[in-house]
Amino acid sequence: MTLIFKSNVDSWPAWRTALEDAAPDVPCRNWDDPGDDAAVEYALVWKPPVGELRRRFPNLKTIFSLGAGVDHLLVDPDLPAGIPIVRMVEPELTRGMVEYVALHVLRYHRETPLLEDQQRRREWREMATPTAPKRRVGIMGLGVIGQDCLRVLSALGFALSGWSRTAKDISGVTCHHGRDGLANFLTEVEILVCVLPYTAATENILNRDLFAQLPRGAYLINVGRGGLQDEDDILAALDSGQLAGATLDVFRQEPLPEDHAFWAHPNVTVTPHNAGTAQPWSAAGAVAANIERIRRGDAPLNIADLSEGY
Amino acid sequence: MTLIFKSNVDSWPAWRTALEDAAPDVPCRNWDDPGDDAAVEYALVWKPPVGELRRRFPNLKTIFSLGAGVDHLLVDPDLPAGIPIVRMVEPELTRGMVEYVALHVLRYHRETPLLEDQQRRREWREMATPTAPKRRVGIMGLGVIGQDCLRVLSALGFALSGWSRTAKDISGVTCHHGRDGLANFLTEVEILVCVLPYTAATENILNRDLFAQLPRGAYLINVGRGGLQDEDDILAALDSGQLAGATLDVFRQEPLPEDHAFWAHPNVTVTPHNAGTAQPWSAAGAVAANIERIRRGDAPLNIADLSEGY
Repeated sequence: MTLIFKSNVDSWPAWRTALEDAAPDVPCRNWDDPGDDAAVEYALVWKPPVGELRRRFPNLKTIFSLGAGVDHLLVDPDLPAGIPIVRMVEPELTRGMVEYVALHVLRYHRETPLLEDQQRRREWREMATPTAPKRRVGIMGLGVIGQDCLRVLSALGFALSGWSRTAKDISGVTCHHGRDGLANFLTEVEILVCVLPYTAATENILNRDLFAQLPRGAYLINVGRGGLQDEDDILAALDSGQLAGATLDVFRQEPLPEDHAFWAHPNVTVTPHNAGTAQPWSAAGAVAANIERIRRGDAPLNIADLSEGY
Repeated sequence: MTLIFKSNVDSWPAWRTALEDAAPDVPCRNWDDPGDDAAVEYALVWKPPVGELRRRFPNLKTIFSLGAGVDHLLVDPDLPAGIPIVRMVEPELTRGMVEYVALHVLRYHRETPLLEDQQRRREWREMATPTAPKRRVGIMGLGVIGQDCLRVLSALGFALSGWSRTAKDISGVTCHHGRDGLANFLTEVEILVCVLPYTAATENILNRDLFAQLPRGAYLINVGRGGLQDEDDILAALDSGQLAGATLDVFRQEPLPEDHAFWAHPNVTVTPHNAGTAQPWSAAGAVAANIERIRRGDAPLNIADLSEGY
């Protein structure tokens, strides 16, 4: 009942320590360390090499994603069939996303790029800026992460709208849903935040048609997945002024290619897919609790619904 | 019972409209508009010309500050004596300060300057960043503004400390007070936020001795007043690495002189004293309510205590 770990981003030593604390009787080893692959029942992984999970681990019982999304697993056509894939739902990953969203919403709200330009020109221009109640922020995706973003943006006092696949009712938030609700959602949103999962239904949803329905000069923040965005359409919307700025943590191709136009665009902020990361000290407990459920014969919590793709 | 208005920063048309709504029977006029100065009983002002309040308005009953601090009035040696000076305490000014503090705390917490450098170099370096519970933020000044900053920073999950002149007890915040409590407060603070009033007791409190008690590489955010900071000491602490960065909304001399070293310092963010501004649509009601109190014979709320200087 070994757990195998694989990530190019997350720290194996930190995870090992945390897993040994949270599940002392579950042997853990890193992907490339020697050991008995037939003993592996659990895989805790981020972007494992395609085909390897099925080829190496014949007795795998559950795949734990190190990310909130499971699209990095579903790209594998040889993914082991018939075993659950568990989404990473843990407070500190969520918190990281919320921190990022709050930071970049405030950055646009407070006209930080303009103020930075003024500093470069040594220009002192006092100005009264509107406060948060005069600014409407819209969140696409109202799951755990989207709702926690709303909690903090509400504490700051922003006017809030939300959009999701299925209907939601959230106090203090103007909620819209479904393709039919998208136009009404977009029409008033000055800062658009996307935390959607990447599925067949959401691919390229951030495109020119969507941008055209925002007020002119709106801002885009995408912390979902790169597959949600049409990158040529983002550049065109920035160049036309329909979008005033874009802050992107995710890209069609990661790492973002060195010659991509986003890197040097004056109105694009690029971050290296680091908005939210599972924190071993917090997340190992959630993994251990799910392993305990599985050993009791219960289904683990937060299983991805593969019919919906997330 | 006219109200006279004076500010180089706040919008007179917006204030006039808001005051006419909130106090329709109080005539209002702008500082330079013609009118009967003897009829003026209320002054709503930001940095009025020294000596002018006493010289022009013999029947002045109350001075309303457009800022939360009153130091911009107390610099006037000819300020009319024996009448109350009312501090601007209104939710939207507070909210502006809180937005600014949350933005710049998050900016340092999330290592934004480092990420911006990476973008300039087209460098993709994935890294897991610690979340807010692993970062201690300290607030100097625990009045209305400081406590509202703590409310939002707490919603984000930061580890929080506070320091104030007199003892405070705030749930979830490690509170220190007085000169004797300063060293213990500073020793763990990675991001130091100053919202203190500027008085004889706080002048130059942000100096080399204080910076030396912070952990090496701490960040400073000052949204109080320029008189709180020794600007040469800030530059020296940045150059030695004791401070990793400083975000300053206030300066000894405002506008910040064009040849000041802060403008082009790579680790200094300069903003033009725009963190928090009274919003006419919200603040006019507070002014009108205080005028109503005065006309009933009651003392206005939020009178500055001139013995403490704020």
